[in-house]
Amino acid sequence: MTYPLPLFTRIDHVGIAVRDLDEAIGWYETTYGLTVTSRETNETQGVHEAMLVVAPPAEGDPSHGGGSYVQLLEPLREDSPVGKFLARNGPGVHHIGYGVIDVTQALATIAGAGVRLVDERPRHGSMGASIAFLHPKDTGGVLTELVQAIPRA
Amino acid sequence: MTYPLPLFTRIDHVGIAVRDLDEAIGWYETTYGLTVTSRETNETQGVHEAMLVVAPPAEGDPSHGGGSYVQLLEPLREDSPVGKFLARNGPGVHHIGYGVIDVTQALATIAGAGVRLVDERPRHGSMGASIAFLHPKDTGGVLTELVQAIPRA
Repeated sequence: MTYPLPLFTRIDHVGIAVRDLDEAIGWYETTYGLTVTSRETNETQGVHEAMLVVAPPAEGDPSHGGGSYVQLLEPLREDSPVGKFLARNGPGVHHIGYGVIDVTQALATIAGAGVRLVDERPRHGSMGASIAFLHPKDTGGVLTELVQAIPRA
Repeated sequence: MTYPLPLFTRIDHVGIAVRDLDEAIGWYETTYGLTVTSRETNETQGVHEAMLVVAPPAEGDPSHGGGSYVQLLEPLREDSPVGKFLARNGPGVHHIGYGVIDVTQALATIAGAGVRLVDERPRHGSMGASIAFLHPKDTGGVLTELVQAIPRA
């Protein structure tokens, strides 16, 4: 099977490192009027996080109909990836997540193009998605996440 | 008039600083299968740039139906904003652009919330859009652009 190009269906989210999640949520709510659709703690990644809706999932597109979000990330520990990022760079854009139809096939296609992967196999991401990260040294300095959203009910 | 919230309609683009525009375009084309929809030189901003389509403009939404793009930015000069960014940080995410319905009203709303503006008034951006930048010191370290796309024909 030839994987359909382009690989990406949408900009799924912008991942932003923050020092204080509640404060950042309040700022996005009052300044831009965005609302939180999901809050999670991910022990493996070492983050508290919140997803705020920029554009909701499109209608009539159940197989890959994710939306677009701002993802705010507060580290649980200083030695976590986001904790180290904050220490080095301060708050700001941490990574970009792109929507894909099939994360396993997209990973194989991208690895086949010579890009190193942070995640050789997909794992669980925010809101039940299957996700995987690509290595920023091979993606022009952009820490890049692939996101296969769960089908809408 | 009360400006409708949320202010944002979509993630319009991710602006990425690159050292060599042609090389970066080639990488995005071959690795992800994205295609260039627009190339421009903006002397005021000091950049060569290209817009690659992640998601095309939505159907039936002529008043604010912009799409979602990767915007690749190569500086024309070392002392331009993107040139200085590259010298300081290397290649990577330079800014985030969010779609808005009315950039003038969105700017007024955001300024009213106490956020300093890089652009007090909208100016011309990529693909005929009206755009304005917010000051990253007031937006959690995220250089943020508002984008009012031109109506679709």
